[in-house]
Formats: sequence, C-alpha cells, structure tokens
Amino acid sequence: MQPITRLAVESMDARDPLGGCRQWFALPPGVIYLDGNSLGALPATTPARVARVVEDWGRDLIGGWNRHDWIGWPRRVGDRVARLVGAQPGEVIVADSTSVNLFKLLAAALDLARGRRVILSEADNFPTDLHIAQGLSRLLADTVEVRTVEAAALPVALDGDVAVLMLTHVNYRTGAMHDMAALTAAAHAAGALALWDLSHSAGAMPLALNEAGVDLAVGGGYKFLNGGPGAPAYLFVAKRWHGRIQPALSGWMGHARPFDFATAYEPAAGIERLLVGTPPVLSLAALDAGVEMFDRVDLRLVRAKSIALGGLFRRLVEQECRGLGLRLVSAADPERCGSQVSYAHPDGYAIVQALIDRGVIGDFRAPDVLRFGFAPLYVRHVDVFDAVIALREILATRAYDAPRFRLRALVT
Amino acid sequence: MQPITRLAVESMDARDPLGGCRQWFALPPGVIYLDGNSLGALPATTPARVARVVEDWGRDLIGGWNRHDWIGWPRRVGDRVARLVGAQPGEVIVADSTSVNLFKLLAAALDLARGRRVILSEADNFPTDLHIAQGLSRLLADTVEVRTVEAAALPVALDGDVAVLMLTHVNYRTGAMHDMAALTAAAHAAGALALWDLSHSAGAMPLALNEAGVDLAVGGGYKFLNGGPGAPAYLFVAKRWHGRIQPALSGWMGHARPFDFATAYEPAAGIERLLVGTPPVLSLAALDAGVEMFDRVDLRLVRAKSIALGGLFRRLVEQECRGLGLRLVSAADPERCGSQVSYAHPDGYAIVQALIDRGVIGDFRAPDVLRFGFAPLYVRHVDVFDAVIALREILATRAYDAPRFRLRALVT
Repeated sequence: MQPITRLAVESMDARDPLGGCRQWFALPPGVIYLDGNSLGALPATTPARVARVVEDWGRDLIGGWNRHDWIGWPRRVGDRVARLVGAQPGEVIVADSTSVNLFKLLAAALDLARGRRVILSEADNFPTDLHIAQGLSRLLADTVEVRTVEAAALPVALDGDVAVLMLTHVNYRTGAMHDMAALTAAAHAAGALALWDLSHSAGAMPLALNEAGVDLAVGGGYKFLNGGPGAPAYLFVAKRWHGRIQPALSGWMGHARPFDFATAYEPAAGIERLLVGTPPVLSLAALDAGVEMFDRVDLRLVRAKSIALGGLFRRLVEQECRGLGLRLVSAADPERCGSQVSYAHPDGYAIVQALIDRGVIGDFRAPDVLRFGFAPLYVRHVDVFDAVIALREILATRAYDAPRFRLRALVT
Repeated sequence: MQPITRLAVESMDARDPLGGCRQWFALPPGVIYLDGNSLGALPATTPARVARVVEDWGRDLIGGWNRHDWIGWPRRVGDRVARLVGAQPGEVIVADSTSVNLFKLLAAALDLARGRRVILSEADNFPTDLHIAQGLSRLLADTVEVRTVEAAALPVALDGDVAVLMLTHVNYRTGAMHDMAALTAAAHAAGALALWDLSHSAGAMPLALNEAGVDLAVGGGYKFLNGGPGAPAYLFVAKRWHGRIQPALSGWMGHARPFDFATAYEPAAGIERLLVGTPPVLSLAALDAGVEMFDRVDLRLVRAKSIALGGLFRRLVEQECRGLGLRLVSAADPERCGSQVSYAHPDGYAIVQALIDRGVIGDFRAPDVLRFGFAPLYVRHVDVFDAVIALREILATRAYDAPRFRLRALVT
C-alpha cells in the first residue's frame, strides 16, 4: 500500500463537506486540538452571546426572566439537544451537572422498578457514574446493589433483580461504543430500564434514543456540545415515563406552579419536573451557542467524518510510529468507537506533555493512556496528519524524557 | 414630628459611608431597583470578568483548568463567601444550586443524627426548602418526617426525634429574621443539628455562623451577592463535621483524587467532598466578581444602612400613604428584619406592575404582598423617597386599575 502523504490528506480536507464548519469556532492559531472530547472549543458566536445576556441582566434586572424568557431556556436548549440525541421536543431538559442528573434518574428508576434493587453497570464506566450510584445506594441504607461487570458479561448479568442498566455509550478511556439498541432491548427483555450517559457521544454522531427505546439518559454540555468549561448538563426521559417519574430532588423549578410559592410540592406535568434550582442563565447562553450550530449540520456527515479521522489516525500511527512502543487501546475499527482513539505507552503522561508543548493537544488517562479526540466540526484531516508526525518525532527522539514533561499537573 | 423632605433624604445620602459603592454597579438609568433581594444588580466589573474567562477558554482550551486554576475556583470563591457568613476559609464551597446543596446537607444531617428522623422547619419557609425535604423523605420511603410549625412554636417542636432544624434566616415574604444563635443553641440543646439557608441575608448583613455554632448552611449567589441570574450557590459545613459528612451526591469532583479516575468513591478530606460535577467556570467568574467587592466593605456598615433604608421606607409610607390601603406585613422594627419590607394590598399585583411601569422595581408575592428590597451597596436614600412618592401617586390615583397592569407574567 502506498504511504499516506500530507498532499493526499490535504485533498481529503478539500473534499470534506464539513470543512466550512471550522470557521464557526474561534480556535487559537498554531494549535492542533484533539481534546474536544474533554472540553469543546469556543464557538465564534459565544463571546457575543454571553456578553449580550450579561448586558440584558444589567439593563432588565429581574424583568429579564420574562422579557428574555430565561425561565424557558432549560426547555428551549433542551429541545435543541433533543434533536441531537434522537428525542422529541419536550423530552430533554438542560439542568445541573451530569452527575446530579444521573442521581435524579437513578433514584427515579429505582422508584419505577418497585422491588428491584440492582443498578447494573460496567466496571469501566466513567468513575463519576459509578460514584453517584454508590452514593445513592449508601443513602438508601445499602438496600441497593451497584453491580459492575465487564462489558461482555452485561447480558448475562441482566437478571430479574436489575432495576436499571446504567451505561455510558462511549467509553471515556478506550472510545469503545456500546450497541445502544441491543443493550436497551436486552434490559427491557430482563424487565429493567435502560439509562444511558451520552457525554462522550452526543454531538459526535447521530443518536436515536427513541428509536432504541431508551428510557432515560443524561449527558454533559462541555464536550462535543461546546458549551464551555463546566457547562450545564441535560437529561432525557422518554415521554411514556413523564407522568410516573417522581423527582427525588424536588426543587421549586420542578413544581407545577413555582411562582405560586406553595408549601407542598406538586411536580410539573412534563420534563420540567426534573428541574431543581434556578436556571443558570449565563451558562445556558453559552451552551445554547454551542448546540445551536448543530441545527445546520447533518449528523450523519459528522459521524462519517469522525470515522474518517479516527481511521486516518490509526493508519498514520501504523505507518509512522511502528516500533516506537505505542499499543492501540481502542478497537482497530473506528466504526466500533466514538470520536476518539487511545494508545498505551509506559511514558504516556510525558509524551502527552511533550505533544502539548508542540501545540498538539490530546490528553492522558491513568495509568498509561494517550487519548486523542476528533471533534468533527473543527478537526481537519491535516491536523491528524501533523499530530501523528509530531508524535513520531517525540517518540523517535525521546523528546518526552525532559524532566519538565514529567511533572504532574493537577488536572490531567 | 416634621415631615421627611427629599432635601433631608438627600443629606442622608451625602453622609452615607457606603455612598461610593453604587458606582461599582452598572445600573440602568431611570430605574429605582428595589428587587436586589430577588436578583442582584450587575457589578461593573462583571462583563469584563466574564468576557475574559470566555477568552481564556478559547485560547487555552483544556489547559485552562490548570493555567487559570479553574478547578480551584469553587474553593476560592467559597473562601470569599466564608468571610461574609462568619466562617473560616475551607468551610464554604461554591457548587450547584441552593436546592441541590440543601439536599446534600439534609441527607448528611440525617446520616449524622443516627436514628433521629425528623426534619423540623417552619411552615412559612421558602417553598423549595420544604420541597427538597419532602423529596428526600419520599426517596427514603417516608421514613423521614418533615415537621413544619409556626416560627413561635419551633422551640417546643424541638423534641428528641429532631435530626435537624432547617430554617431560612430571613423570610422571603415578610423579611422576618430569626435569631440564629438562639435557635441554633436550642437545636443543640435538643440534640439536633442546625442548618440555615442564608439566601436572603448573606451580603446584606454580617453573619456569624461559627460564633453561633451553626453546623450546616446553604445560600444562593444571585441575590445580595450579585452573581447573576441562576448564579451557583454555596454551602457551609462547620469544620468539626468535615471528616464525618458522607456525601449522598458523591460525584467525581468530591473524590479525594478525581483525576485518578478510580472506580470506588473516596471522599476528599475537606469541604471539596461536597462537590459533585464539573465546576461551572463561566458562572463562577460572574459570582466571583459579585462577591469580590465585599472584600472592601465593612458588613456592619452594610447592615446599618439596610436598617436605615428599611426604617426610612416605613416612615415615608406612614407619612405619604396613610389611608391608601397598605398594611405593613413586616415587623415595624427594621432591626428585626432582613434588608426588605413588605406590605399587603388586595391589588398588590397590579400596584407592583404600575410601579415597574414608572421605573420603580419591587416585586409581588402571592397572595397580596408588595415586596421592596434594599441592597445597601447600591440603593440610595433618595431611591426610597422617590419610590414611596411613586407608590403614593399610584395608590391615590388608582393608576394600577389599568387592565395592562393586571395581566400576570410567568415569573412574578
């Protein structure tokens, strides 16, 4: 097979139907950003959007809640997210953090599954998802079992005690992607609910929650949705459960009539009952700017480009970095992965630092994983090419051996 | 007694030691803002602070977490709030919403009070506080009793079953202020913990959580702290409980080593264990700008001015609006209230709308309460004077009878 040249890769960009989307972002010059799966880039419209809402607050003060319908933003932005995850308007709402939303939905799932007391997940799920399940179990006097198994053992572990199958669609470390429809069907066949964490997939591929029959879902706003650091998260509840979900976190914004200031809690009719506190308006403005651009994008093209970038990265590492100690952690087939690829190397941390030093930003996950994400709206094929060339040079010259690359930062 | 003239009131402003603070805010011209107890005004520094953090995100991307210590902001801003509430650095952290924080601390209080299963509160507490307690009780299979009594009956209701006394320091509707030290002592004498909601008092007066021996507290960021609509909230845990509080909402940011991505939850040593999800960086920047200005302010002067404004409003209503149908809902003595005063009138809603139409912004609380708040950093004595004159004219001419003032807005 002919080696892949930069010229060939440039022509991939020239033919890329999403090539124009990159200009929607304010990317710093000289940086190849392969960490949009951790924190998305800044949309070009966000500074003005955020500035405007701050200005609106200053001018309209308390009147802003009505004048700008701030009170309706969790639903309005949620409806935008709904399209991205294959839900109907009114099935998704933006609120709180992914972890808090997960707590709400796990508590609700246990409530719906009267009698069943097992939360089933995989051992390699994102830690906070497992932590939240552990905390809920502890709160309920350990009457709930958090059962974790390897991914392959999930179907067998789905026994008659399982209340809810809780999985992250795309694994944060390896990029491995579950078959959402098949596992949801397996959960249902076992009489359990299916709850998916979409944090590492929404915005990088079309999702089909309703088509797959998913009951509940959560996801973050700051990865592929480009909502900014610590952006609010969202949650999905299939319409069929709306009337029966009882919020454990029953705050006033989930009340049927919050501004009646009634003493007794009465849940709102729709998805709003899963709101808790006052909507974070500044953050919602930023998240809205991040998800708005997807209105103009065909998510099938997003997924196709994601697969193309992931495949190209693998082939280039194969071509350029053979014998330099990298071991592919992700599946060889990018179709089985989310929009990221991971390699293991004993000096993974230092290598990632040396890459960052050259303007190639990926990230490191303990114990030895180098992780590269491909946000299809702004990562180019040449970015992938240039990143792999930098990686080869760092490996071949052991540039990562410099002491300054070995100092651990607080956040990795 | 001589009537109070505008001239006399102007001289109060001239002598006001906090008179210069008003310039710290970007207030719209022609508006008298008496609703800072609902949503604080925009600090003049906030637009640039928020713009800068958005810019930092765009330029530094994932690196911003370390470069700008975003990860440390919940603690750093919490330390600023600590000074306002009479706590030590490390006892307060900014996170989530007031309601979510209340859920965390109620769950923790029940956990600490092994065996005791009553949450005691007052019937007129802010609704979301009661709702959250109700939801927690329901989650715990109704093994928890949410007992509500009138304020006067609280000492008697503090029996041996009470796990935690949960009160809002200043009543949102009437402004009535509890004696925090006395009720905390009564709770302790009964073997219960004391949990205070400071949403309507922090930033308007000095608070002394540690001096009063308070165990737990929560509060919002968007009222007197001027953090913006839906700003993040904070929570306080007295140092003596730090090692023993087990977080029910055990998210990764509360983990001892979040970036180890360990499967088993292990709480952080300090107040950080009550963090859950990723810190909301944009909102934190705005809240920091809001609380930062208090570093330069003597809170005793803030309280003195608050009492002066509240007293002046009462005397002027007495002088100008006698016989026009207003009934004082708040205590006659402003020293017994937070930084607000309330009156009842059967046409309260329409009157508030007519006032807003003239640029005097107070708010309405069902069923018939007109509420006026005095944020001491930016409300002037002449604002109080002009507001009462406008109120008198609206009442005397029945200007509020216009149909457009009777249409209920979504958010009141």
